[in-house]
Amino acid sequence: MSAQRIRLGMVGGGEGAFIGAVHRIAARLDDHYELVAGALSATADKALRSGRALGLAPERVYVDFAAMAKAEAARADGIEVVAIVTPNDQHAPVAEAFLKAGIHVICDKPVTTTSRDAKRLAALARKHGRIFAVTYNYSGYPMVRHARQMVQEGRLGDIRVVQVEYAQDWLTEPLEATGQKQAGWRTDPARSGAGGCIGDIGTHAYQLAGHVTGLVVDELCAELSTFVAGRRLDDNAQVMLRFQGGARGALWASQVAPGNENNLRLRVYGSKGGLEWKQEHPNQLQWSPFGEPVQTLARGTGAANATAARVTRTPAGHPEGYLEGFATLYSEIAQHIRAARPGGAKADGAAEFPTLDEGLEGVQFIEAVVVSSARGGRWVKVPRVARA
Amino acid sequence: MSAQRIRLGMVGGGEGAFIGAVHRIAARLDDHYELVAGALSATADKALRSGRALGLAPERVYVDFAAMAKAEAARADGIEVVAIVTPNDQHAPVAEAFLKAGIHVICDKPVTTTSRDAKRLAALARKHGRIFAVTYNYSGYPMVRHARQMVQEGRLGDIRVVQVEYAQDWLTEPLEATGQKQAGWRTDPARSGAGGCIGDIGTHAYQLAGHVTGLVVDELCAELSTFVAGRRLDDNAQVMLRFQGGARGALWASQVAPGNENNLRLRVYGSKGGLEWKQEHPNQLQWSPFGEPVQTLARGTGAANATAARVTRTPAGHPEGYLEGFATLYSEIAQHIRAARPGGAKADGAAEFPTLDEGLEGVQFIEAVVVSSARGGRWVKVPRVARA
Amino acid sequence: MSAQRIRLGMVGGGEGAFIGAVHRIAARLDDHYELVAGALSATADKALRSGRALGLAPERVYVDFAAMAKAEAARADGIEVVAIVTPNDQHAPVAEAFLKAGIHVICDKPVTTTSRDAKRLAALARKHGRIFAVTYNYSGYPMVRHARQMVQEGRLGDIRVVQVEYAQDWLTEPLEATGQKQAGWRTDPARSGAGGCIGDIGTHAYQLAGHVTGLVVDELCAELSTFVAGRRLDDNAQVMLRFQGGARGALWASQVAPGNENNLRLRVYGSKGGLEWKQEHPNQLQWSPFGEPVQTLARGTGAANATAARVTRTPAGHPEGYLEGFATLYSEIAQHIRAARPGGAKADGAAEFPTLDEGLEGVQFIEAVVVSSARGGRWVKVPRVARA
Amino acid sequence: MSAQRIRLGMVGGGEGAFIGAVHRIAARLDDHYELVAGALSATADKALRSGRALGLAPERVYVDFAAMAKAEAARADGIEVVAIVTPNDQHAPVAEAFLKAGIHVICDKPVTTTSRDAKRLAALARKHGRIFAVTYNYSGYPMVRHARQMVQEGRLGDIRVVQVEYAQDWLTEPLEATGQKQAGWRTDPARSGAGGCIGDIGTHAYQLAGHVTGLVVDELCAELSTFVAGRRLDDNAQVMLRFQGGARGALWASQVAPGNENNLRLRVYGSKGGLEWKQEHPNQLQWSPFGEPVQTLARGTGAANATAARVTRTPAGHPEGYLEGFATLYSEIAQHIRAARPGGAKADGAAEFPTLDEGLEGVQFIEAVVVSSARGGRWVKVPRVARA
Repeated sequence: MSAQRIRLGMVGGGEGAFIGAVHRIAARLDDHYELVAGALSATADKALRSGRALGLAPERVYVDFAAMAKAEAARADGIEVVAIVTPNDQHAPVAEAFLKAGIHVICDKPVTTTSRDAKRLAALARKHGRIFAVTYNYSGYPMVRHARQMVQEGRLGDIRVVQVEYAQDWLTEPLEATGQKQAGWRTDPARSGAGGCIGDIGTHAYQLAGHVTGLVVDELCAELSTFVAGRRLDDNAQVMLRFQGGARGALWASQVAPGNENNLRLRVYGSKGGLEWKQEHPNQLQWSPFGEPVQTLARGTGAANATAARVTRTPAGHPEGYLEGFATLYSEIAQHIRAARPGGAKADGAAEFPTLDEGLEGVQFIEAVVVSSARGGRWVKVPRVARA
Repeated sequence: MSAQRIRLGMVGGGEGAFIGAVHRIAARLDDHYELVAGALSATADKALRSGRALGLAPERVYVDFAAMAKAEAARADGIEVVAIVTPNDQHAPVAEAFLKAGIHVICDKPVTTTSRDAKRLAALARKHGRIFAVTYNYSGYPMVRHARQMVQEGRLGDIRVVQVEYAQDWLTEPLEATGQKQAGWRTDPARSGAGGCIGDIGTHAYQLAGHVTGLVVDELCAELSTFVAGRRLDDNAQVMLRFQGGARGALWASQVAPGNENNLRLRVYGSKGGLEWKQEHPNQLQWSPFGEPVQTLARGTGAANATAARVTRTPAGHPEGYLEGFATLYSEIAQHIRAARPGGAKADGAAEFPTLDEGLEGVQFIEAVVVSSARGGRWVKVPRVARA
Repeated sequence: MSAQRIRLGMVGGGEGAFIGAVHRIAARLDDHYELVAGALSATADKALRSGRALGLAPERVYVDFAAMAKAEAARADGIEVVAIVTPNDQHAPVAEAFLKAGIHVICDKPVTTTSRDAKRLAALARKHGRIFAVTYNYSGYPMVRHARQMVQEGRLGDIRVVQVEYAQDWLTEPLEATGQKQAGWRTDPARSGAGGCIGDIGTHAYQLAGHVTGLVVDELCAELSTFVAGRRLDDNAQVMLRFQGGARGALWASQVAPGNENNLRLRVYGSKGGLEWKQEHPNQLQWSPFGEPVQTLARGTGAANATAARVTRTPAGHPEGYLEGFATLYSEIAQHIRAARPGGAKADGAAEFPTLDEGLEGVQFIEAVVVSSARGGRWVKVPRVARA
Repeated sequence: MSAQRIRLGMVGGGEGAFIGAVHRIAARLDDHYELVAGALSATADKALRSGRALGLAPERVYVDFAAMAKAEAARADGIEVVAIVTPNDQHAPVAEAFLKAGIHVICDKPVTTTSRDAKRLAALARKHGRIFAVTYNYSGYPMVRHARQMVQEGRLGDIRVVQVEYAQDWLTEPLEATGQKQAGWRTDPARSGAGGCIGDIGTHAYQLAGHVTGLVVDELCAELSTFVAGRRLDDNAQVMLRFQGGARGALWASQVAPGNENNLRLRVYGSKGGLEWKQEHPNQLQWSPFGEPVQTLARGTGAANATAARVTRTPAGHPEGYLEGFATLYSEIAQHIRAARPGGAKADGAAEFPTLDEGLEGVQFIEAVVVSSARGGRWVKVPRVARA
């Protein structure tokens, strides 16, 4: 597929980063992209070393993202899309630079640290006609797609209750005090924004619930806590949710829950049945039609519907994981990037990957939680995003 | 053990009841009780038929509980304790009659429909020097005892987060409209009190959380929902909890969650480790010391501590269940009843079974939830019960 | 139910025993029996102490089982049935004494140490018209009954493969060398018979497979191993099975498999679907209709068939365990004992509990395994028992 | 990494194939390979169409593998290694052609259809100094590596019992009669060799057991069955195993076990502890040190040892799956291919991927099983392979 590979650049993701490597594998897995340029670190040494390790041509290893945007836009073989994998505070300025240079954007979540920034990016993307994808990667799992489709088909009846949680334990102790890079920026309000745990993982849970149920949160009541002494952002969040249309729910996010590695879990209950999905065992979906036995719907089997089958690579029982779900988003984005090429074939169907709409919703969710909690746990309205 | 068996009476629990049969098995399992009298139904026919089926002497089959209290108190071989297994609204009048007759009481939960009633019973029990046990049966499971002991020993460090939930699905549809007896009274405010799902099962979750962690809830914020049209009480409850000392938590109770049979589940996270226990697989307890592998602590193994071992009947891998946990409460109560006999040997240690203190806490919890929800989900204080 | 309780005696089951206490609870749970006599130990002191602890009348506490059989047979209120819970080598002589005294027998497994003994007992039971039940207790679990019924209804199609295993770990080290009573007799050929692990637990696995599938083993090929130095009987057994009609299977039994508490597990695969059941989580049965999602069939739900529902005491999600399954056998036996009383009402349906037929099959299985293994793992025929 | 990517060719894996796509993703995932040539099908049309779809240069799309070997060997930029993903009967002739052309070989399992062929290839590989890797991919999972290391460190003590099984259900019905391509060749002795299920998946189970335990099978006793009418090869296999040194075990492989997707599962029991691993949930390993609680060792956590950590890409709780394990083999092979380049840096440590030694062992295992079964289930010796 080399001839048509999409030329990809990356900002962030140098040595010591976690998510940059994930994005690179995700881009490569289905062979739609070739990484050709990068501003992998704001530290010159590290940027060069990281670029070399990845086999980039030396002239396409940048230290400054603005210079990269300008230079790449000027090349005939310049990048078509940039992946932004920096700490949160850099998402907006980097995205702005590349959008203005006419380059598509794939950005990690939360898309910005303020909703104002997210709205500004949305306007820029519209103005320049560029794709802006946000990597809420968990929506790339086949059985998440399956669940979403079941809800859309009315299999669950009217949705009544949504329980979603995302628990980890890696911040049970003050890891940021040890110099650990990930813990450092993720607990630093200057780099992460106003949300700690709620921004880092709570937004994933929120997006997943919305993605699967199609429901929109109307009001929420939240309490953020910081259990580790000296920590500057929340490490635990309790949120009650009122959805438009009457459904009710709760969201719990925590990074201080020992025994939880990356425990994202969604349960949806309707008048006709219930669903349960766990990220750590993503190939199965529990489906409980009311009054009948619980069924285990498995990826790759005949029980998986077309939306799941479309994003499935291996047969039943040959487990797919985190990287495959992430790669699915990249491959779906690729289709739209190709369609946007001059003379490109139209992409097959609407974008399935999360865009700035969902990115903005995520940021507004964080802001609403922070406000509710600051008011002592009062109910607050969540602004509605008019979907593009 | 027949010579020393405790003479037991029962009010409620006639034909068609569920919990009465459970109490009878629980009483019998360890051979500490003999059922000798009953007012099993307020309907004469049914009372007689039920009494006969249970082999009671005809003169000790009563229709009226007040008459039973008086008659049994007058017999030399009268009952020593009465088990009250009626709908909630009858708990207080029945308990009052037997306490006044000098008879110990074992009462199902919630102990009364108002906290005023619970307080009056407490005063009566004190005045007459009688035992008053409340069958929060889930605290009888060995691995629940184990968990409680671990918390007390400080194994979890400071408790930070408590997630407790109790989900069922049997009221997903309007079962009460079909004449089903259990659904009928449990959704009827005149018989159940102000709480539906929150009273029927939410109190169990609340008691379990308090029993294991030893924490006391200071404030809560709740939302009760009724999803089934025409239902007169809540069938779903979301509650956020603030514990004294700073821990935070959430409680979810639902009877409209398809796929959940009797899914009571507790998770407790502290600065040193986390615990998870599920009622449907009660012989295992997940213990996650921070930074170490998750361990499955199993009933009957060397890993189970003395508080668990004391209430264990079968070896590891020979599962104990619901009835055994219930029986454990009955057997612990028996020890105290025997101790209260003239010349009775002192019971070994303090009462481990739940008493009116926990009963009152449960009722106050229901009341606080109802008030919070009625105010649109405002935080309310939960009164503190001074433990006897 | 006291008036009609069946008068029960027990041989074995004194202090320090495990299975005696299980039998007593099982007898009591559904209130069909009253223990009134016992020869609980062959040691006089212990027999007396144990009898007193159980509240037996002093004159009905025996040291000698033969004396007990004679004395009880002579009493107007003598026992109607004896439970034999001694080490295996005593089963036959005790059973013989009581059968000859006209007393029904409930005997633990394996029913005897030789098939000759089992056949002699069968003849005696027939001659005296007495019930002889063998407590293969795992067949008392509701979902085992459900599975058996599914097979009978042809839901699985033609059975092709049966995988059954029973693994424990308590004999991983030479526990018998420490004086532990259970380990002592169970590894002693003089008291256990020719099979160690294969007799103690392998027979349970064998019986379970036959009970559920209705299939009869035609030939087997076995290898017994003794891994712990100094042990006198096998502690691990591998067996390949050829069933009449063409199905194939394997049985694995081990008492030296660390991490296995009491892991009895059955899998049955047919042309139309597969079943899996695990004793440690007995309330669920996995049912896999070919080409459809795996279903979890749960005890107490609408998915459980009539044979399961009949032996179910608590609602779905209120777990039943080992003692309840054991009690079910006792209650079914009770029905037949009552039917055998002069003027007794006919028992409802054929005996569902295992009788001497299954007892004899179990002993013949042990013998076949021992022979096959002794021949270096050659296939041997398993004699067929003509069912009564 | 593009500059140093290894030039890869592929034989087989055209349209409709399953495993070819897996090999391509596995090669790409860690960015060590570039697919540049292929004889993807023996049908010209299909070969061309498949090559074009993969973006191969037209002149490097071959129909004939022999021509490909010759042409590629002659190019300065010819392939360095060929991946053979044809039906089994083609493995040997293809491998022979490429080895003779001086090209490294990566071959799917079973490596050949006869042990004679495997030995001939071994001699050729030695003679030409080429790498020959066999993709027993399950040994690439991190927790399999962890398990192997634990055994080597003596954590389990002396290994006593090995239970391994590999069950699927996709051949429960005569799928080969429908024209399904995979079922077609896998049940055809002319293309698969003498083993059906035992060759297709039984060898994986066998290799996994040997890989983890380091034990060598001395003798086996097997029974192959064909349950589906008209099928030409076995679809179920029972094997008892005697290992050198005294350990005992059993292997069960089946493709007619409804409810099993790709259920490869290994249990190893030693004098000090037991391990259990399931391919369908590969990120966890159950470790049961005797007398202590069962521990869940998880990939990516501190509990995973260095051999697991080395082949881990994502943090704990971000599941890796089948493709990642497969890619690990490819990446380890890459290191050795690079080392074999003129002036190549020495590979870090011995080859961890399976080579012809394990490939030959697999074929000899199949042959021994077939012989044992043909003899009615007699014990047969398994030849020993002298490891290179």
